[in-house]
Amino acid sequence: MKIALDAMGGDYAPAVTVEGAIETVKEYDDLEVILFGDEDQIKNELKEKKYPSRRIHIRHTSQIIEMHESPVAALRKKKDSSIRRAIDSIKSGETDAMVSAGNSGVVMASALFVLGTARGVDRPAIAAIMPTLKWPFVLIDAGANVDCKAENLFQFALMGSSYCSTILNRKKPKIALLSIGEEDTKGNDLTREVFKMLKESGLNFIGNIEGKDVFLGEADVVVCDGFIGNIVLKTSEGLAEVIIKMLKKEIAALPTGRIGYLFMKPALRNFRKKTDYDEYGGAPLLGINGTCIISHGRSSSRAIRNALGVASEFSRKRVSEIISEEIMSFSNREKMLIEG
Amino acid sequence: MKIALDAMGGDYAPAVTVEGAIETVKEYDDLEVILFGDEDQIKNELKEKKYPSRRIHIRHTSQIIEMHESPVAALRKKKDSSIRRAIDSIKSGETDAMVSAGNSGVVMASALFVLGTARGVDRPAIAAIMPTLKWPFVLIDAGANVDCKAENLFQFALMGSSYCSTILNRKKPKIALLSIGEEDTKGNDLTREVFKMLKESGLNFIGNIEGKDVFLGEADVVVCDGFIGNIVLKTSEGLAEVIIKMLKKEIAALPTGRIGYLFMKPALRNFRKKTDYDEYGGAPLLGINGTCIISHGRSSSRAIRNALGVASEFSRKRVSEIISEEIMSFSNREKMLIEG
Repeated sequence: MKIALDAMGGDYAPAVTVEGAIETVKEYDDLEVILFGDEDQIKNELKEKKYPSRRIHIRHTSQIIEMHESPVAALRKKKDSSIRRAIDSIKSGETDAMVSAGNSGVVMASALFVLGTARGVDRPAIAAIMPTLKWPFVLIDAGANVDCKAENLFQFALMGSSYCSTILNRKKPKIALLSIGEEDTKGNDLTREVFKMLKESGLNFIGNIEGKDVFLGEADVVVCDGFIGNIVLKTSEGLAEVIIKMLKKEIAALPTGRIGYLFMKPALRNFRKKTDYDEYGGAPLLGINGTCIISHGRSSSRAIRNALGVASEFSRKRVSEIISEEIMSFSNREKMLIEG
Repeated sequence: MKIALDAMGGDYAPAVTVEGAIETVKEYDDLEVILFGDEDQIKNELKEKKYPSRRIHIRHTSQIIEMHESPVAALRKKKDSSIRRAIDSIKSGETDAMVSAGNSGVVMASALFVLGTARGVDRPAIAAIMPTLKWPFVLIDAGANVDCKAENLFQFALMGSSYCSTILNRKKPKIALLSIGEEDTKGNDLTREVFKMLKESGLNFIGNIEGKDVFLGEADVVVCDGFIGNIVLKTSEGLAEVIIKMLKKEIAALPTGRIGYLFMKPALRNFRKKTDYDEYGGAPLLGINGTCIISHGRSSSRAIRNALGVASEFSRKRVSEIISEEIMSFSNREKMLIEG
């Protein structure tokens, strides 16, 4: 299997992307990675490193996309960027999937433009995996769509459920709707409408879930619009970092600070490992005709390696096709109900 | 000064509310607390306790409001509940402010119905104080309004700013809009509109703030609608609890577990103290004609005492009047601009 990697994407590219590619081909015998980006820079990173060179390839691209560039402008003017060319390579059949830690807006827009939505899907969504006390859950949409209709959120639930059962191996994933109270009357206009749709859907819908309960692990899939999803994702990330910093400060302030810190260090390391974004590698864009994995801008080489792993599993298990089948079977069922 | 306390509100009422009232009159010589609720139960809690009895009073009420009762039904049918009678006592001039750890929806609806909005205010909002690495900030709206217009969010910014400067003593508080990117083009339809209004307002608006940055303490006031605000508040609360639990588990799993925990315990206690909801006591409902403080359902007696302290400060500093003056002066300025 061949995976395209945006070698220029992310805060520490191309050093960590190239390193991530090397780690990947060393770990997975059946994978080849195609690095899209500036050939000189990539070769410079590869130089003097040992790796199975037959399974790492370079495709030179001449344009760079900055982190805050507008998707529309990038689509129009940067057809030879690493993101665009990586996505083009899925379309042409050269690769099976792509990974980027670059500008996520540009990845989404390009994927939508080049690959199109999967059959039956109105809007693609980002599915982020978040840790809990028990096990991880899928947050969907984590930032692809800022203004949503009820039908969109309903499809996010379907897509999140397919993804969760296929990749996290959960049977009949428990779906919850992020809201401000458990009762069906609680929420805003949008969530109240989605609540009704989900309740009547026959899906394994467990009702509304409040912010305080998402990290207890009762739901497998938590559904919300991309504006809220992104805020929840980023707030959680920021808060976790701040809590660790505050705790370290409190420990250092104690008379026993140094010793206490020594005892705590391995615990902190284990905690980090369990909650670290790097562990999950990246968030797939669900609902497009192909496999695109969006990684964090701050991705390490381990995050890139894990994202490439996710991409290959996603493609091998045909998640896009399964999502499309699920959604089509749902809309056919609806049609049959309407037509009587 | 006399403060009304909903003695029946909260998960541990009336034990902790009565205890909170006693702690309050012991700490503040100039405060009297009027307990609204079931007289027998309150007397039972007061029995055998020592306190300045001339400064604690009881007003018997016959009805109980459950945590999940609908505000509309409560307004109509429970005119002799502790919440309603406490709010009535502000209107009649018997008390200067009220505190409740009970059903917040009923507190809001009753305050709006009995006291009305402050002059110039369209919609009252809940202002929650949240800890950061540096110092606390005000999150507004933390849950009063689920569906908002741009004008509402603009007023939340004004109210939050007045509250922050009056109660947290910050000069020209830095106002930020919760969104999914720093640039003015980022956000949803609602926040993009509010962004423009705030930018042109002459307020100390520092732009959009992302979820990952709110806990760094760069903004004094973070503005959002009540649906998102409530989710952010509850998610943060839930996450903080889960992180502490996970860390404890990690420490216990180490061979040095017991010793490590002993070293960490005082640090955890200090951390809790700094981030504990109890410390801030309660969140005021801003924009009504009077002082209503909403406390957490899980409030301890210390939280109740702090909430009563906040209520007295809020009333003494005339925060409601200041908010009204600010909003009126803004809308007058707007009028002058329009009329040229």
